[in-house]
Amino acid sequence: MSKLKDAKTGPNRVRLGMVGGGQGAFIGAVHRIAARIDNEYDFCAGALSSNPQRALASAREIGLAEDRSYEDVAAMLAAESARDDGIEAVSIVTPNNVHFPVAKACLEAGIHVICDKPITVTCREADELIALAKAQNRILAVTYNYSGYPMIRQAREMIEAGELGDIRVVQAEHAQDWLTEAVEQSGNKQAGWRTDPAQSGAGGCIGDIGTHAYHLACFVTGLELESLCADLSTFVSGRQLDDNVNVLMRFKGGAKGSLWASQVAPGNENSLTLRVYGTRGGLSWRQESANELELSPFGEATRRITRGSPAAGGAAAAATRIPAGHPEGYLEGFATLYKEIAAAIRAARSGTTAVGMFPRGEDGRRGVAFVEAAVKSSNGGAVWVNL
Amino acid sequence: MSKLKDAKTGPNRVRLGMVGGGQGAFIGAVHRIAARIDNEYDFCAGALSSNPQRALASAREIGLAEDRSYEDVAAMLAAESARDDGIEAVSIVTPNNVHFPVAKACLEAGIHVICDKPITVTCREADELIALAKAQNRILAVTYNYSGYPMIRQAREMIEAGELGDIRVVQAEHAQDWLTEAVEQSGNKQAGWRTDPAQSGAGGCIGDIGTHAYHLACFVTGLELESLCADLSTFVSGRQLDDNVNVLMRFKGGAKGSLWASQVAPGNENSLTLRVYGTRGGLSWRQESANELELSPFGEATRRITRGSPAAGGAAAAATRIPAGHPEGYLEGFATLYKEIAAAIRAARSGTTAVGMFPRGEDGRRGVAFVEAAVKSSNGGAVWVNL
Amino acid sequence: MSKLKDAKTGPNRVRLGMVGGGQGAFIGAVHRIAARIDNEYDFCAGALSSNPQRALASAREIGLAEDRSYEDVAAMLAAESARDDGIEAVSIVTPNNVHFPVAKACLEAGIHVICDKPITVTCREADELIALAKAQNRILAVTYNYSGYPMIRQAREMIEAGELGDIRVVQAEHAQDWLTEAVEQSGNKQAGWRTDPAQSGAGGCIGDIGTHAYHLACFVTGLELESLCADLSTFVSGRQLDDNVNVLMRFKGGAKGSLWASQVAPGNENSLTLRVYGTRGGLSWRQESANELELSPFGEATRRITRGSPAAGGAAAAATRIPAGHPEGYLEGFATLYKEIAAAIRAARSGTTAVGMFPRGEDGRRGVAFVEAAVKSSNGGAVWVNL
Amino acid sequence: MSKLKDAKTGPNRVRLGMVGGGQGAFIGAVHRIAARIDNEYDFCAGALSSNPQRALASAREIGLAEDRSYEDVAAMLAAESARDDGIEAVSIVTPNNVHFPVAKACLEAGIHVICDKPITVTCREADELIALAKAQNRILAVTYNYSGYPMIRQAREMIEAGELGDIRVVQAEHAQDWLTEAVEQSGNKQAGWRTDPAQSGAGGCIGDIGTHAYHLACFVTGLELESLCADLSTFVSGRQLDDNVNVLMRFKGGAKGSLWASQVAPGNENSLTLRVYGTRGGLSWRQESANELELSPFGEATRRITRGSPAAGGAAAAATRIPAGHPEGYLEGFATLYKEIAAAIRAARSGTTAVGMFPRGEDGRRGVAFVEAAVKSSNGGAVWVNL
Repeated sequence: MSKLKDAKTGPNRVRLGMVGGGQGAFIGAVHRIAARIDNEYDFCAGALSSNPQRALASAREIGLAEDRSYEDVAAMLAAESARDDGIEAVSIVTPNNVHFPVAKACLEAGIHVICDKPITVTCREADELIALAKAQNRILAVTYNYSGYPMIRQAREMIEAGELGDIRVVQAEHAQDWLTEAVEQSGNKQAGWRTDPAQSGAGGCIGDIGTHAYHLACFVTGLELESLCADLSTFVSGRQLDDNVNVLMRFKGGAKGSLWASQVAPGNENSLTLRVYGTRGGLSWRQESANELELSPFGEATRRITRGSPAAGGAAAAATRIPAGHPEGYLEGFATLYKEIAAAIRAARSGTTAVGMFPRGEDGRRGVAFVEAAVKSSNGGAVWVNL
Repeated sequence: MSKLKDAKTGPNRVRLGMVGGGQGAFIGAVHRIAARIDNEYDFCAGALSSNPQRALASAREIGLAEDRSYEDVAAMLAAESARDDGIEAVSIVTPNNVHFPVAKACLEAGIHVICDKPITVTCREADELIALAKAQNRILAVTYNYSGYPMIRQAREMIEAGELGDIRVVQAEHAQDWLTEAVEQSGNKQAGWRTDPAQSGAGGCIGDIGTHAYHLACFVTGLELESLCADLSTFVSGRQLDDNVNVLMRFKGGAKGSLWASQVAPGNENSLTLRVYGTRGGLSWRQESANELELSPFGEATRRITRGSPAAGGAAAAATRIPAGHPEGYLEGFATLYKEIAAAIRAARSGTTAVGMFPRGEDGRRGVAFVEAAVKSSNGGAVWVNL
Repeated sequence: MSKLKDAKTGPNRVRLGMVGGGQGAFIGAVHRIAARIDNEYDFCAGALSSNPQRALASAREIGLAEDRSYEDVAAMLAAESARDDGIEAVSIVTPNNVHFPVAKACLEAGIHVICDKPITVTCREADELIALAKAQNRILAVTYNYSGYPMIRQAREMIEAGELGDIRVVQAEHAQDWLTEAVEQSGNKQAGWRTDPAQSGAGGCIGDIGTHAYHLACFVTGLELESLCADLSTFVSGRQLDDNVNVLMRFKGGAKGSLWASQVAPGNENSLTLRVYGTRGGLSWRQESANELELSPFGEATRRITRGSPAAGGAAAAATRIPAGHPEGYLEGFATLYKEIAAAIRAARSGTTAVGMFPRGEDGRRGVAFVEAAVKSSNGGAVWVNL
Repeated sequence: MSKLKDAKTGPNRVRLGMVGGGQGAFIGAVHRIAARIDNEYDFCAGALSSNPQRALASAREIGLAEDRSYEDVAAMLAAESARDDGIEAVSIVTPNNVHFPVAKACLEAGIHVICDKPITVTCREADELIALAKAQNRILAVTYNYSGYPMIRQAREMIEAGELGDIRVVQAEHAQDWLTEAVEQSGNKQAGWRTDPAQSGAGGCIGDIGTHAYHLACFVTGLELESLCADLSTFVSGRQLDDNVNVLMRFKGGAKGSLWASQVAPGNENSLTLRVYGTRGGLSWRQESANELELSPFGEATRRITRGSPAAGGAAAAATRIPAGHPEGYLEGFATLYKEIAAAIRAARSGTTAVGMFPRGEDGRRGVAFVEAAVKSSNGGAVWVNL
């Protein structure tokens, strides 16, 4: 428990702004809680909505000072740059198509960027942001938040240590059911932009959640995808983007696997699962039981390794706040990324670098490339496409 | 419980012979127990091994009268035909390549055939058996045994009744780990013939277990496969057949899905699972927890429907022996097929027909066609192949 | 798999009769299937019902020769003794109050007895049977069938080997829900006799299922109960016997524990569970997931040990028929007792003894003593009573 | 999601101090995170340790202004009372024996109290605090934190609505394994004070966790305990307090039940479970899978009701932050109490009252009475004691 460092003195805290996340949004509030849990941020400015009235109302509701609630990003960057205590980082939680221009403007203003996934809608845009972040020496983080779960860190650490031997098979899934019916046609705001190619990009389900499963598979195994064959489907009448996707994957080095993502699978709330099999053993993890991980050394009994237990290693322990048996959830996993990003930003203040396992621009770009390849494959009749 | 009809009077019992299933075999003993559980068979003759000494020793071990233990099928058919109490059905439990000649000889002799899967190694052979069974008016059953599980019957009944609406997605898996290492190279008899194309045919894992998952998917949903794209892999060095397979599936009518079968997935003993999603709900079943089925009507809480409970319908009840909470297992599911086949054979005695859900020649042929298509697809680089 | 000895030659089979188990009964059919599974018995005679017409109809239904279907036990014993191929053992599956006179008559006639639990209604009766069986040199087996499950054997073996250290705590449960309402008042035959003290004895739920949990706790741990404090309740209006019981237990040597049995716990079909904790580790088993056992060595990850897997030891393997992942159920566990009893009977033929873990008269007596003590405790206001 | 109100404007936030919770402590940090998650508190003062150096170091580590880090409670109350922005509430997270004097001093100073459980060591002390809080018109909250879980709220709401009918049986458990060995003798600070009667009071395991299970049972069912019979054991040599306890319970109105708490049960990390059975149905909840609740209407399939799903009712929804399938954990449940307490404190500012389901002084007193009765029962030989 001595590892529970739960707060930082004021000057150590990172001054954070937010773009998007106003009333009616979902992920913005998640980012704010995640930033608060470990007390490493001062959330002090925002352009919470493209609608000025909603922006102001949202700011009031969440306790943001009115004079630091801005009508748009340009106004925020201008005003904050002029302050001694202006923001040094920004969380971007808008629809996907807005990520790029906002991130670009922030990086150009010397502001660190914490961007929700997907980092951009195209690889070209991602490349530009990566180059810009490098030139500006600023952090460009992407919140593939599931990689913050302690037992995902544990899985990665075990594979890196060779406990599974050479990886042969990777089975990844991310299934939901909330788009089983055409809720985007009856005013559901979340469904609206996520099924609109103008706001989401060319991928629907593949971009919204398939990319989470894909990132997790790569994060945990360290493998790189070589080629894929994707069959994207749109089952709901009138929907503009895919709502179910089946993908075959071939990784560099010979591993194979499949990925299934769906938003029309009744009974699945947020069934993100990862199974990995190698020459020496297998492992299995389910996001909805995130505090445990099953390890099956070949020829031995399966072990249930739990967060906070003696059987969990250093990587998991570093991402853990409370003892075994006291479940940590989605918000804590998200918070772990924020905590690592804060450390990286503090390091950047002093010109040094913090390692941190949080996903960065390159990881974001890989996610965009995955979506682009899957769409291309499917449009071609579900043919093999190299990454 | 009044449904537990556990025995039949002597003359009503079916006189059964067996080909294969001698010492060192696995599935033969399973068939014998399955035939005994509901007491509808007299197991009275056998050609248990191609090795005469082993045949005799096997017969002695299992209590078969020595004068009805034969050196080969021809001898058995000749002698049994000459008896008033000769066998009227035969269970074929040899390696795959022997199924066809034995089944053919038996049908020609007017003997009903209960054949382990796959029915044959090629579709051509399967067609010939189907035609022969029809011409001879004899039963040709194939023991896709998992279709005997009560909750599989329940799933089929619910889908047939429209409880899931129109089916959109089918996810089927059959994973094992016993071939993770090259045990066929160190004397494991089961591994030996199953990885030998001369005895197994062109499919390894796809034929041994992938075909079980495929049969179950079709049995439960009533869907027919239109095309597939299969990526077969051989991970173990020196192995002659595939040991892992990832398949994309497109069904007639528009449903999609994927199928994963593996024998190199540590931690999976016999993980056969089926998940089906439609416009109105989803369902999920795991063979290793065979007594329950999860039903998720869209927008409602998931229900756990258990064998023997009031929530289970007529089809499950008909395949159930003991009350809810008293688990039935693999052998009872297998026995249900035997029970239904016995009813069909008794009906045939009197020139009538019994319905029975047990798989028949046509189902066996579909399984062979699936394996052939998967092998063809994979050999072509994992391209789409029509069934 | 080579362990799957599934049949015996004719003369090796045990000639078995049955008392009780006619139409409308439940456990009789279970005994018959259990006796068939491993093919070690010839079921050839019966007095299946105290109602002569039902006895005959039942015999016909299950294929028993009519001339060996008897009107009562006396007739059966007289006629069978006169035959060269007369029965050598009998299964007693009547209501509890009939166990004693039938078992006594059979033992006196030199017939081995396989008696459903509880062996008798009083300890005095149990003592008499035990003495009689000893004097007659006949087997007196009691079908506490759950002790036949392979993973229960595994649990016992691990504890005996010291893997849990000194046992401190034992938590046993057996919960059902089928008596939640007063079904005995609306013609349910099973409920009728089980809630009738004249047929069941002084214990209701405690005798019907509490005693199963108690036997399992002792069988697995090897502990002996020193004293108990039992609170028996009758929740259903008009019911004559207890339908829920909470017991505190103190074992010789210092272990403590509690036992809960209920037949009015909605959602529990047959939730028999056992958890044992010692100085070095803990274990947990659930009958409804009978093929696995969780072992938690203190300070290490919990392991899931599965039937048929390399992690299971010799005792489990000896009680196993088919490979890991192919679930065995309630009937197979029951069959294991029958198989062991058959071996003991064959040994008795030749004047030797077979070990066998099946429960015997003494185990049956302990169960009766437990029920008597619990009833006495509860009647006294739930006070401590020594065994 | 629109329910996610994640922050309050500055003046609306509650100004909070803390007593205890310095370096090496566990629950203090939990309280601080819980207070931050919903952003309703400004944590601004503390007397974090009775050791002045540790107090200051702790304050620095967590970012508390040094001039508001105090050496003791008296100093804190004196200084804070003199400030316009002084604290209005205090979290007490010391060992148990210190709860009473600190809470008393705070209430006397007009400060709202949020006290960790048990509220005091004796009922007499609890009574005094309750009276004082009433006289001072101040909140006296006790953090039986598990009652903050959404699905516990759901369980309570369903029972209150009669979905289970009349309650018959309550089975509560709280099992851990961290005291399996004598870690208090080798410097574990948490174990040290929890097994020391001078700091913990007369109850060890019964007070540390048994009281959580007890509170939950009462909170969910609305039942009041009438009498109990408790068998407290100390299994670890040299330990001064009980480490395992088995309790029989009789509730007013006729319900029965048992409670098991243990800290020497290997494999149990924090296995708090509650099962309740009534005339119309049963329910089951496990803290380690806190986001779901099983409901079994009698005669129907068991339903898995999940946090955030349409099947969950208003009480659960009010305690929920993020969508179904995105697990909330221990910290979020804890935070829900803090959020409700903040609302109550804001109401108190304006002289009104906020309802809030958070536990208060009376609930705390019931917990102390339970521990006292259990200790008395056990000391008398595990006899029945009226509450």
